[in-house]
Amino acid sequence: MTTITLGKNQYGKAEVRVVRVTRDTARHEIEDLNVTSQLRGDFADAHFTGDNANVVATDTQKNTVYAFAKDGIGSPEEYLLRLGRHFTGEFDWVTGGRWEADQYTWERIDVDGQGHDHSFVRGGTETRTALVEIDGEQTTIIAGLTDLKVLKSTESGFVGYPKDRYTTLKETTDRILATSVTAKWRYNRNDLDFNAAFADVRRLLLEAFSANYSYALQNTLHDMAAAVLEAHDEIDEIRFSTPNSHHFVVDLSPFGLENPNEVFYAADRPYGLIEASFLREGADADHRVWDGVAGFC
Amino acid sequence: MTTITLGKNQYGKAEVRVVRVTRDTARHEIEDLNVTSQLRGDFADAHFTGDNANVVATDTQKNTVYAFAKDGIGSPEEYLLRLGRHFTGEFDWVTGGRWEADQYTWERIDVDGQGHDHSFVRGGTETRTALVEIDGEQTTIIAGLTDLKVLKSTESGFVGYPKDRYTTLKETTDRILATSVTAKWRYNRNDLDFNAAFADVRRLLLEAFSANYSYALQNTLHDMAAAVLEAHDEIDEIRFSTPNSHHFVVDLSPFGLENPNEVFYAADRPYGLIEASFLREGADADHRVWDGVAGFC
Amino acid sequence: MTTITLGKNQYGKAEVRVVRVTRDTARHEIEDLNVTSQLRGDFADAHFTGDNANVVATDTQKNTVYAFAKDGIGSPEEYLLRLGRHFTGEFDWVTGGRWEADQYTWERIDVDGQGHDHSFVRGGTETRTALVEIDGEQTTIIAGLTDLKVLKSTESGFVGYPKDRYTTLKETTDRILATSVTAKWRYNRNDLDFNAAFADVRRLLLEAFSANYSYALQNTLHDMAAAVLEAHDEIDEIRFSTPNSHHFVVDLSPFGLENPNEVFYAADRPYGLIEASFLREGADADHRVWDGVAGFC
Amino acid sequence: MTTITLGKNQYGKAEVRVVRVTRDTARHEIEDLNVTSQLRGDFADAHFTGDNANVVATDTQKNTVYAFAKDGIGSPEEYLLRLGRHFTGEFDWVTGGRWEADQYTWERIDVDGQGHDHSFVRGGTETRTALVEIDGEQTTIIAGLTDLKVLKSTESGFVGYPKDRYTTLKETTDRILATSVTAKWRYNRNDLDFNAAFADVRRLLLEAFSANYSYALQNTLHDMAAAVLEAHDEIDEIRFSTPNSHHFVVDLSPFGLENPNEVFYAADRPYGLIEASFLREGADADHRVWDGVAGFC
Repeated sequence: MTTITLGKNQYGKAEVRVVRVTRDTARHEIEDLNVTSQLRGDFADAHFTGDNANVVATDTQKNTVYAFAKDGIGSPEEYLLRLGRHFTGEFDWVTGGRWEADQYTWERIDVDGQGHDHSFVRGGTETRTALVEIDGEQTTIIAGLTDLKVLKSTESGFVGYPKDRYTTLKETTDRILATSVTAKWRYNRNDLDFNAAFADVRRLLLEAFSANYSYALQNTLHDMAAAVLEAHDEIDEIRFSTPNSHHFVVDLSPFGLENPNEVFYAADRPYGLIEASFLREGADADHRVWDGVAGFC
Repeated sequence: MTTITLGKNQYGKAEVRVVRVTRDTARHEIEDLNVTSQLRGDFADAHFTGDNANVVATDTQKNTVYAFAKDGIGSPEEYLLRLGRHFTGEFDWVTGGRWEADQYTWERIDVDGQGHDHSFVRGGTETRTALVEIDGEQTTIIAGLTDLKVLKSTESGFVGYPKDRYTTLKETTDRILATSVTAKWRYNRNDLDFNAAFADVRRLLLEAFSANYSYALQNTLHDMAAAVLEAHDEIDEIRFSTPNSHHFVVDLSPFGLENPNEVFYAADRPYGLIEASFLREGADADHRVWDGVAGFC
Repeated sequence: MTTITLGKNQYGKAEVRVVRVTRDTARHEIEDLNVTSQLRGDFADAHFTGDNANVVATDTQKNTVYAFAKDGIGSPEEYLLRLGRHFTGEFDWVTGGRWEADQYTWERIDVDGQGHDHSFVRGGTETRTALVEIDGEQTTIIAGLTDLKVLKSTESGFVGYPKDRYTTLKETTDRILATSVTAKWRYNRNDLDFNAAFADVRRLLLEAFSANYSYALQNTLHDMAAAVLEAHDEIDEIRFSTPNSHHFVVDLSPFGLENPNEVFYAADRPYGLIEASFLREGADADHRVWDGVAGFC
Repeated sequence: MTTITLGKNQYGKAEVRVVRVTRDTARHEIEDLNVTSQLRGDFADAHFTGDNANVVATDTQKNTVYAFAKDGIGSPEEYLLRLGRHFTGEFDWVTGGRWEADQYTWERIDVDGQGHDHSFVRGGTETRTALVEIDGEQTTIIAGLTDLKVLKSTESGFVGYPKDRYTTLKETTDRILATSVTAKWRYNRNDLDFNAAFADVRRLLLEAFSANYSYALQNTLHDMAAAVLEAHDEIDEIRFSTPNSHHFVVDLSPFGLENPNEVFYAADRPYGLIEASFLREGADADHRVWDGVAGFC
């Protein structure tokens, strides 16, 4: 009989959709999240013998997510911290876990030049993300965003790469650079104004994407990371997973037309995929919190 | 042997992704479309005998879409009109067709309070849509938008509906109303400033959604339609297909908590689905252009 | 003041997910559907004045869908017929409506060469579809399937098409033909063995796709339609919406390799899109039931 | 000036769609893959200085994927091994990388009880997956599958879990258990019949899912893992990421109906999410190959 051991494991309730309306005054606020709660600890019996004595039901986790929303969200990071501390504090055998949230943006509808009190329109394609991991005494927070689509129509090129027998790509000093940014950054503190930090990192990412000539998407990621790490001491590391969303110049010569970078075909697949982590000097280059975070090497 | 006849048919190239950069000055403009071209006419032989003499290749249609982009887009409606007139003018047996486009929004990235010259970020979740149908001498244009997500956190209720043995829903005078608007409106003219009209219709839809108490989504659709038809003589009809994106108040009483419309569960499925057309008095209530437009009764 | 009239409209509950287990014996049966119920009738007041006296709540429609599942499904068509007759019979002002279902396939898991009594695995990518429309005294039934992915690796070509200044496509007598079939067929009777008819139409579609050389996808659609209309007197019309899922031969010549139709690139977008209706002689070529059916011209 | 270092990074071409037809005889074979190639090594300059001398273009990687398909696929694992050895052998500074493939199933269309020579229909919802990681001298292979949807309509329960103030779930000894299996298993050898191994693991997973009473999804995962590790010495570890796809018994009592587990509502979100790794005794419980594999803790 083969002996089998249980390796890494976690379980919980995924994608709990919580919308919290703050309506103390006529000017409502809305927070819209998709929350996942996952517990880690001593769950071997549930796997091996079917004894669920330690299995805090995923339904209970869902209920807790809603109950805690009653006290307000504030920021996804703070809300997840409260959830994580509850579960690890309440149940002896829950020694850690991971709590994640996506947050969607709602902007006030503009009526006669004024933001409406209680009517909102969804903003942007992007989603703000937050992750709190608790591992015994250690708590780690990662903030981020995903699907922030950006494009620069010039000031991008790609030259100087090695050529082998399989290389057919032509060098260019003027192309479209487009990507859909997924970025996640790891804080070295748990007590900060997470909403302000998020807003400023987002601003810096967009500005750095715009600012410089891009020698490759790798190069632009560095510029974006540098802007963030320079300005935010509370961030030790930032990771990117960014498709190179190819825009190919259409060959119009068969139709007697020139095409000096005016008409492009936006391709779906395949796409370049660039993943990189940038760290403040001395920071942990292999932090355990990244295990299992999708889409990062 | 059963005799078979060919009924309605059309064919073409779908989802041609065209990105047009206007770069006459350092301040670039970008237009990003997803274009579908479909031809109608005498194509029976291709179906019955395999004779393709009349089948303008879908690849040729794609090439034409790109070649015409060289002359600029301007507005999706004008661009599609040019394409439609080309195909129906060039090939005798092409007596009509349908040309559609989705257009995606790119906004300039804000750098130091100024929109950047050539760096852009994708705006909103919504997509602008346009459709040109040519049927012999008649040309019809439909503009629209899809996936415009809006929510009002109060000033919405649902009461007074019939109760039968299958009714369990409780009446409420205060609920969240949320939807993802798909609206399409039919112009009665082909010569107008389509971009300005689109922008104003979008503004009116948002304002009307915000303005009044909603007795049901049906009621709100009427208010939105009325605002548009009132202000835009060039529009004869507007149709909506709008999910009622349910936000249910979570029952927190098992946890000893009250929930006066503060914590909601945003449901995925099932959802209400409200479809309605509103017409200027005397307009054609059964215009043929709507045949085959997805998602409208 | 502009006078506005209400045009076509319908409303209801969409995507009610019903799973019905028949467990009268140890050998369970499972039926898995996604049901949409939409009512038509006199709903003007709800739109214009906010009076919901006629608005059978979409929540009530949902409840009814579940309650009727208690009596068994049998076939999606019969189940939808029962629902439609209920709503039009129960409420005077409901003069018609549309009831639709997607049905997913579950196959018994094979254990030691035997299908298991109560363990199932989802089959195929395709979905069976059904639609019942009631309009006053008239009831129309459409059956269908969607996303049936098929591919033939030879016996397909495309030649003899017109060439104009935008044509660059080369003729070929050997290519991959691949598509994802969406087909819907209209019955001329409401009392038949819908499950048997569906199974046989599906078989005929696959066999006809396989059987003949394809001069174009249009030609193959004809063959598929002919096989169905020939064998099934109870079907008056069949409509197709089929992408031409391009598989392009990769040019390996830069690497010193020949590629006699061995290595292909499966493209996403753009794609050809072929839509056609085939009718039994004398059948109604413009049946109202198709209005608003997505993806058919 | 903040000093920034480059952490983990990789880049390449993602989702290269390769269809390989083997047509040496009239009876064609088809292999349909979605391939991602990612290189690791010395790429700091590209990030920091914009010097691309080491950046093997993602376009070159794509070309190589196609060129290597000319020699046949065989199994995704062998094909990826050939690709990985090429890149790490060809370029000094490429010290490793990750090569992944999804493979889609095509079955022969049945015509008169015989599988057709060159006409195919897509099978199942599931996708076979393969991953080859090279890290210097070490090569690791992970096989798997994703989206294998299974359901058992009885022989599943959930009792004995802890109850706290947020628990409202009722115990049950008879429920539907449904999930969409994503499983990945790590081989301890690189020279085996990968296709045969895959087919047998898939069979064992399905049989073990069917076989026993399920005390929780955790318990069933253990049974599935045990069956695989017992039968396949060449597998050291298997990991699962499985949603608990809730099927809720609909309360029909308001309509005067009983519902003894016959009518269910299949929910979308939230869902339980169970992730677990099972290892052969002595196997590495924290193998580096899992870093960055999406959806596993």
